Amino acid sequence: MQETGTKRPQTALLHEIRVTWGDCDPAQIVYTGRLPWFALDAINAWWEAHLGGGWYQMELDRGLGTPFVHMSLDFRKPVTPRHRLICPVWPDALGTSSITFRVDGEQDGALCFSGRFVCVFVDPSSFGKRPPPGDVRALVQRHLPQAGAV
Amino acid sequence: MQETGTKRPQTALLHEIRVTWGDCDPAQIVYTGRLPWFALDAINAWWEAHLGGGWYQMELDRGLGTPFVHMSLDFRKPVTPRHRLICPVWPDALGTSSITFRVDGEQDGALCFSGRFVCVFVDPSSFGKRPPPGDVRALVQRHLPQAGAV
Amino acid sequence: MQETGTKRPQTALLHEIRVTWGDCDPAQIVYTGRLPWFALDAINAWWEAHLGGGWYQMELDRGLGTPFVHMSLDFRKPVTPRHRLICPVWPDALGTSSITFRVDGEQDGALCFSGRFVCVFVDPSSFGKRPPPGDVRALVQRHLPQAGAV
Amino acid sequence: MQETGTKRPQTALLHEIRVTWGDCDPAQIVYTGRLPWFALDAINAWWEAHLGGGWYQMELDRGLGTPFVHMSLDFRKPVTPRHRLICPVWPDALGTSSITFRVDGEQDGALCFSGRFVCVFVDPSSFGKRPPPGDVRALVQRHLPQAGAV
Repeated sequence: MQETGTKRPQTALLHEIRVTWGDCDPAQIVYTGRLPWFALDAINAWWEAHLGGGWYQMELDRGLGTPFVHMSLDFRKPVTPRHRLICPVWPDALGTSSITFRVDGEQDGALCFSGRFVCVFVDPSSFGKRPPPGDVRALVQRHLPQAGAV
Repeated sequence: MQETGTKRPQTALLHEIRVTWGDCDPAQIVYTGRLPWFALDAINAWWEAHLGGGWYQMELDRGLGTPFVHMSLDFRKPVTPRHRLICPVWPDALGTSSITFRVDGEQDGALCFSGRFVCVFVDPSSFGKRPPPGDVRALVQRHLPQAGAV
Repeated sequence: MQETGTKRPQTALLHEIRVTWGDCDPAQIVYTGRLPWFALDAINAWWEAHLGGGWYQMELDRGLGTPFVHMSLDFRKPVTPRHRLICPVWPDALGTSSITFRVDGEQDGALCFSGRFVCVFVDPSSFGKRPPPGDVRALVQRHLPQAGAV
Repeated sequence: MQETGTKRPQTALLHEIRVTWGDCDPAQIVYTGRLPWFALDAINAWWEAHLGGGWYQMELDRGLGTPFVHMSLDFRKPVTPRHRLICPVWPDALGTSSITFRVDGEQDGALCFSGRFVCVFVDPSSFGKRPPPGDVRALVQRHLPQAGAV
């Protein structure tokens, strides 16, 4: 699949999640419904690390919304509370008014899941598509995998 | 995409979800992280309706696990507490030891999201793949979209 | 404790919850963190049943917020997906600008938990306390346990 | 109330939580249903910090369960993603087969909520009450508020 075709760039943020008992189901592994939530936490952390605020600050302070239009995840290995979950997260593509993020989930050096997430930039008041502000565009471009190759 | 290519069969189960304030984020719509959870609830309800018990009973009483190996969702319209969320859910494909479910989410007659979910049948003690028991296979086959066409 | 002193009125709403695999932890019972969530769902359902809309409609359409200032719960028996969870919910006291709800959780005829929740009425824009509108006050008064005794 | 009567000991663990957009409701503050969950995360982190593993390891590796029999929380100020949530957590009382934890939630130096949680020690297989193992008892006793006063 093309979504796993790009190499993870060295600039990917490593977001750490403390997995707990309450995240697990009776199979003693993290419930599947929690995993997209973890991945979203990683994307929010990427914005926070690079823009100084997550979705909350982006929407309330900057008037910029980024709702999801697509997500896909492949699950390879169960996630458990035995190890911290490390989620490399990076932007993988930038369109006129959309952005694609990739999020992996790793425990003890092994890949547990990998996901691809597409968001669109919108004006929160109208929910209409818009291009991202120039500083956001520049920020994302600097972190695209291709950027590292230049 | 092929995942939206099959027609929803008349035998799809309509799972109803009461969306609430607590499901919503500051954008006043359901948080994206909740939507896969809703879709999983619909799949669990499908098993409950047809097999007499959901994942809990399948794993604990029948010794049959069905962990997810893939999910993909397209989000078309925000989900809100203004209407009940109706989730048509049906099995779309059955392999030797895997099953594909489709789940749509509709509010007030409009499609809000559509998802595709692939699970594998496993022995819960070893977590190893196995074919489903004969009655489960027969049950699923009767509800595949192609079955209705015969 | 006084909070379990009042008798449940006949007018209590019976809110039904479908408990699932994903609500459970590795002990094969519902994770404690989910139970207050279930109780809140019951309170929201009470408003929806009696006022025509839950917290979402109250805040967005009526400009009335009801944030929580206290909750206490006693847990008697584990909740599982073996039975539907029935949550009797009713207002137990009404102050000048506060309301107390009681929520029980029952499965198969046995009490699993009982909770007491205090909310205050606020103006969402200022987050300042206010008395409830007259129709809300009258509605709640009609459903207080004492009302049934008259 | 007696539950807020004891002073927080210097040995309280400070558990940090990154509050996000997805934790918030349309009032732009953390949804009440999330707050007990946060407090439980803090208690689990206390066990992890002091015993080398949280509830997952306690139950699966040590055969020791600690289900909740009571929780009560007072909510003073809304929690938001504007600041990290710092949760001081400490054991406040130890009975023959029960333990009481206290958890506060603070943001930007202000108290947002305070909670009191009572758990019982059980044998996971029978769910029957039991005294805690000697090392667990000794560990908890060293961290009780009175211990610091000696």
